[in-house]
Amino acid sequence: MKKEFIDPWGSELPADYQKLIKSFGLERFKLEDFPKPNKIMRRGVVFAGRGLDIITKAIKEKKKFYCLTGMMPSSDKIHLGNKLVIDNVKYFQDMGAETYVLIADLEAAATRGVSIEEARKRAMDYFIPAYIALGLNPGKTKFYFQSQNKSVVALAFELSNKATLNEYRAIYGQPTPSRIMGSVLQVADILYPQLKEEIPGVIPVGIDQDPHIRLARDIAKRAKDKRNFFLPSSIYHKYTPALDGSLKMSKSTGNFIELPDTDENIKTKIMKALTGGRKTLEEQKRLGGQPEKDMVYELFKQHLIESDKEFEKRWQDNKAGKLTSKEDKEYAVELMIKFMHDFKKKFEKAKKTKIQFLEE
Amino acid sequence: MKKEFIDPWGSELPADYQKLIKSFGLERFKLEDFPKPNKIMRRGVVFAGRGLDIITKAIKEKKKFYCLTGMMPSSDKIHLGNKLVIDNVKYFQDMGAETYVLIADLEAAATRGVSIEEARKRAMDYFIPAYIALGLNPGKTKFYFQSQNKSVVALAFELSNKATLNEYRAIYGQPTPSRIMGSVLQVADILYPQLKEEIPGVIPVGIDQDPHIRLARDIAKRAKDKRNFFLPSSIYHKYTPALDGSLKMSKSTGNFIELPDTDENIKTKIMKALTGGRKTLEEQKRLGGQPEKDMVYELFKQHLIESDKEFEKRWQDNKAGKLTSKEDKEYAVELMIKFMHDFKKKFEKAKKTKIQFLEE
Repeated sequence: MKKEFIDPWGSELPADYQKLIKSFGLERFKLEDFPKPNKIMRRGVVFAGRGLDIITKAIKEKKKFYCLTGMMPSSDKIHLGNKLVIDNVKYFQDMGAETYVLIADLEAAATRGVSIEEARKRAMDYFIPAYIALGLNPGKTKFYFQSQNKSVVALAFELSNKATLNEYRAIYGQPTPSRIMGSVLQVADILYPQLKEEIPGVIPVGIDQDPHIRLARDIAKRAKDKRNFFLPSSIYHKYTPALDGSLKMSKSTGNFIELPDTDENIKTKIMKALTGGRKTLEEQKRLGGQPEKDMVYELFKQHLIESDKEFEKRWQDNKAGKLTSKEDKEYAVELMIKFMHDFKKKFEKAKKTKIQFLEE
Repeated sequence: MKKEFIDPWGSELPADYQKLIKSFGLERFKLEDFPKPNKIMRRGVVFAGRGLDIITKAIKEKKKFYCLTGMMPSSDKIHLGNKLVIDNVKYFQDMGAETYVLIADLEAAATRGVSIEEARKRAMDYFIPAYIALGLNPGKTKFYFQSQNKSVVALAFELSNKATLNEYRAIYGQPTPSRIMGSVLQVADILYPQLKEEIPGVIPVGIDQDPHIRLARDIAKRAKDKRNFFLPSSIYHKYTPALDGSLKMSKSTGNFIELPDTDENIKTKIMKALTGGRKTLEEQKRLGGQPEKDMVYELFKQHLIESDKEFEKRWQDNKAGKLTSKEDKEYAVELMIKFMHDFKKKFEKAKKTKIQFLEE
């Protein structure tokens, strides 16, 4: 996937994403349907969905709906890219969604060799406080461990006969027993809130997760003989580009910002980010920058600048050659360090929050 | 598999079973190692095993070990064939084994479309009382539902990455996601008692179940990095022949006796069983019967005649032409009806027994 960023609002969707919408049969995200949209919605980072009408209807009519996400309690930290999911979950939580966050400990045991005990520790020490620090309201969020939720497990076994091995092959290439089990369980997670109450739900994910959403929707459809499930809705954000402009974030190249990251790391990583800057200062002034190709502008857009006005002004100033890449980077470093200090403070506070876990 | 029964004790193992032992790498069952053997052990119905030394050693040295079996709470009733498993479980229970009986409700949900609620009802109303009526001591048996045992489920997910899709293909031909999940869970069931205590265990099964045992042993071996499992031992009995001599029991031909069965059904089914009787009474007297080919003698051997002396005398009398097939059948009907009345009485009593289920 080539990355293109045409304008600060992403209102012209890059050709690759248009193709994706067409070939996956997605719905184009309609900003006007969402009250008080968050900045990644306003700026075209959120670009598509499935079955969103039922969710926007519920928001407008103040009817019940749910929003669900999960965390994989492995030894990796989350990074800024994961934050986009939380931004959307927080959006729906603020719009009144019953919010579920599952800790995928059984999946981690199956696919990452993480023991249930390690997973619990990682979730308690890091993932749950991090999710809260990113904006989830702990008092309004139903957290559960897969391993402690008998209803989810039973639903997974029940639904396991609703998809064929070939369908898993289509998702995974070579499906392994662990991946199949993890995947079936994921579908059960997505549908589980509907066991308690027949309400629609929305799953915010990166576009790369769409195959899982499709599977969940297919299985929900095929379970109609016994279960009256709403097909789960979904909302997609674009791939998060790595700081060097490559598609894949990687530990070895350090091209992404972890949560938390040190001031020093932040500085090093941002200062070597790929920009749309010209070769010389003279050229930059004459031709202007190319913020649509600039990873620092991606940081501004997705994470660092809340005000649309400020963001647009900066974009235009860069385009007009009034800002150098160095200035942009220094500003990004400043904002990111501020963000990170704030994150750390919230993280430490969240660690002391008592969580009431769902158990069934 | 051709069926051959050479002598009343099965001490000469039919060629097919000898081949099976060789090609599967089984251990020949050694009667002398088992104190107070039950009648299916004494009569060659139990013919092989895996890893039995560790179990007979535990029995002799009065060390702890466990024995485990499961029930599939579907809509089918169990039949006399299933009784052989219980006979062996009861044997090990009497020898001091910690006895586990699991109700495979998650597996039934996955592979038979039986809901968890239906499965519970079937187990409570029928399967558990039937198992108790067949000889299990309810006070000494740890029953559990898979769906209520979080440790088993977590172990299944943990172990799911210890076997490849190809290994499931070798067992099932075309493995489905449900079968894979059911099978992984079965392995977890088999090893689960070792989570509580590091003791060896034995799983009595029909020889057709050996692929599952091999899988469980392979997985236990591969889990050595984290778990110190004894490889599960197993003990095998022969296929239970259907009353018409065919290999496969089938509802449509009614060639097997259900538990319970009506007096009338018992009579009808036994009276049309395949025997080793000759064409005419004259021939029967002159040539003698062929009890080794006689399904009625299989009933006597496996289920109806407890005394070895009585069984051997009857066998020799039949062989000598002193007994007609009609006489044998009438006697079998009489014994079977007696057995069934006794079973029903115990079954009704067992239904009133309060069971303490394991929950984790």
